[in-house]
Amino acid sequence: MKKRIVIALGGNALGDNLKEQMDAVKTTAKAIADLVEAGHEIVLVHGNGPQVGMINNAFETASKADWHFPVLPMSVCVALSQGYIGYDLQNALDRELYLRGIKNNPVATIITQVEVDPNDPAFKNPTKPVGSFMTEAEAEKLKAQGVPVMEDAGRGWRRVVASPMPMRIIEIESIKALLAAGQIPIAAGGGGIPVVLWSDEQFHGAYAVIDKDFASAKLAEALNADMLIILTAVEKVAINFGKSNQRGLDILSAAEAEKYIAENQFAKGSMLPKVQAALSFVRKNPSGTALITELKKAKEGIEGKTGTKIIA
Amino acid sequence: MKKRIVIALGGNALGDNLKEQMDAVKTTAKAIADLVEAGHEIVLVHGNGPQVGMINNAFETASKADWHFPVLPMSVCVALSQGYIGYDLQNALDRELYLRGIKNNPVATIITQVEVDPNDPAFKNPTKPVGSFMTEAEAEKLKAQGVPVMEDAGRGWRRVVASPMPMRIIEIESIKALLAAGQIPIAAGGGGIPVVLWSDEQFHGAYAVIDKDFASAKLAEALNADMLIILTAVEKVAINFGKSNQRGLDILSAAEAEKYIAENQFAKGSMLPKVQAALSFVRKNPSGTALITELKKAKEGIEGKTGTKIIA
Repeated sequence: MKKRIVIALGGNALGDNLKEQMDAVKTTAKAIADLVEAGHEIVLVHGNGPQVGMINNAFETASKADWHFPVLPMSVCVALSQGYIGYDLQNALDRELYLRGIKNNPVATIITQVEVDPNDPAFKNPTKPVGSFMTEAEAEKLKAQGVPVMEDAGRGWRRVVASPMPMRIIEIESIKALLAAGQIPIAAGGGGIPVVLWSDEQFHGAYAVIDKDFASAKLAEALNADMLIILTAVEKVAINFGKSNQRGLDILSAAEAEKYIAENQFAKGSMLPKVQAALSFVRKNPSGTALITELKKAKEGIEGKTGTKIIA
Repeated sequence: MKKRIVIALGGNALGDNLKEQMDAVKTTAKAIADLVEAGHEIVLVHGNGPQVGMINNAFETASKADWHFPVLPMSVCVALSQGYIGYDLQNALDRELYLRGIKNNPVATIITQVEVDPNDPAFKNPTKPVGSFMTEAEAEKLKAQGVPVMEDAGRGWRRVVASPMPMRIIEIESIKALLAAGQIPIAAGGGGIPVVLWSDEQFHGAYAVIDKDFASAKLAEALNADMLIILTAVEKVAINFGKSNQRGLDILSAAEAEKYIAENQFAKGSMLPKVQAALSFVRKNPSGTALITELKKAKEGIEGKTGTKIIA
């Protein structure tokens, strides 16, 4: 049965640098091509943590060495990262589809702006890790310079920026037009270019990075998708994670998800936003299903064989 | 009469840096909105000389300061520049259309790869200026380091990379899908991400920058456009340029254009590629018209009131 599916690709679908990304997109392309082959309509959303951090840091480093180089606003860094990642992803997926003889589903990246609320409390409390991992000593040095940093889910220290909630996908009509033509849009990359409305449809870039899982949920909602799939490093969402009574979840109702969230079962900046994004999609689209699993299990997950399903 | 028009925006439509670009796109948006208002189907192609140079140079500078930063391949730099410029352009044009009450022509940037021939002689003779202008002394210093440089049409010195001819617009079907939906695609930015075919539809980035006027001509050809408009800094193409007998041209047949090219009437890296691109379009689409003029004269030019028309 043909489904309209929005897929949020996690960091491991892309890797941390140029070489890793060129290799990782090939594996990613295979898993996505399986779903295209099964007849599904696909929209791809990808993260951009390491990439947007690299772009932001490179321009900052260059501007210190030579004042001619600008320090790029975070919104512009996201736009650059969409071009960079979209290019590699569409290149790899196009080829994988070609090798399988699938000729009627071209792939293209749509540069996507996503509106956020300038009064979103996130702007007063930056929490979104960007850029590469640092040691605690390196982080302390940055902190002393006024740069917000935080420890990221036990994996090391990173810089943080505001992560406001996505309100509206500005280029939604272009994404719909590609889907209507049987194509595979790559959209809202890195959660989308964060913009705020000033007046009369004048959108300005915001110093923020939107969570790609929340942006995917908003996109799935706007497209009235049948499924939102959030791909991550684990096969299933677990409760009592890392403890002797750890238990992977097959299905999670919205009410159960809220209960577990209240119990702090899910790690901030890691599994928590994924469960919250899944929850927000099924709340808005009660006939839709959200699925959290790992890339290589996506196809089985859609068939109901694995992963964690979140339903209204 | 509704026309399908591919527009190549020159450097002055974007400016040389972040601030200039944000201002310039507003003026550009007004001129383009005039054409949308007149009922034409528009595809926008933009240059990226200063932008791709800035991105390339910033990463090079950063990598010298800190080896963690990669030196970005030119193809990747073009991809980044498409995201950067596309974002600003679609943001400004969307707003201008909104202010005029035009609600059915959304604008979106398609990240675009353009195939080039790995045996194109251009790879042995780099000629395309990128990056900011330098003094001759600065250029000589780079040259001594093995970086190709050249004097650019009397405007100063710049770095140069290979500029092979565009053969195929990879994402053509996505551009067509947006056009079919009444939308305004921004495509093949900076001439497109240059890629070469290795095997089995496996495209790899090339160390090159494709001329955006030639890419526009190839795109106009593939879209069977009625018009190709190449916007530049002057209202008309002139012969005997800068001399007492300088004469602006209203209309130029393909045969006349070839004669003037043979006489070296047009400056290399400046008016020459524009006339050549116009020529290649009308040769392939004899029913089409090419127009070379300046941004603010685009509307009058389409109405036949000014600019230089090139016909088969």
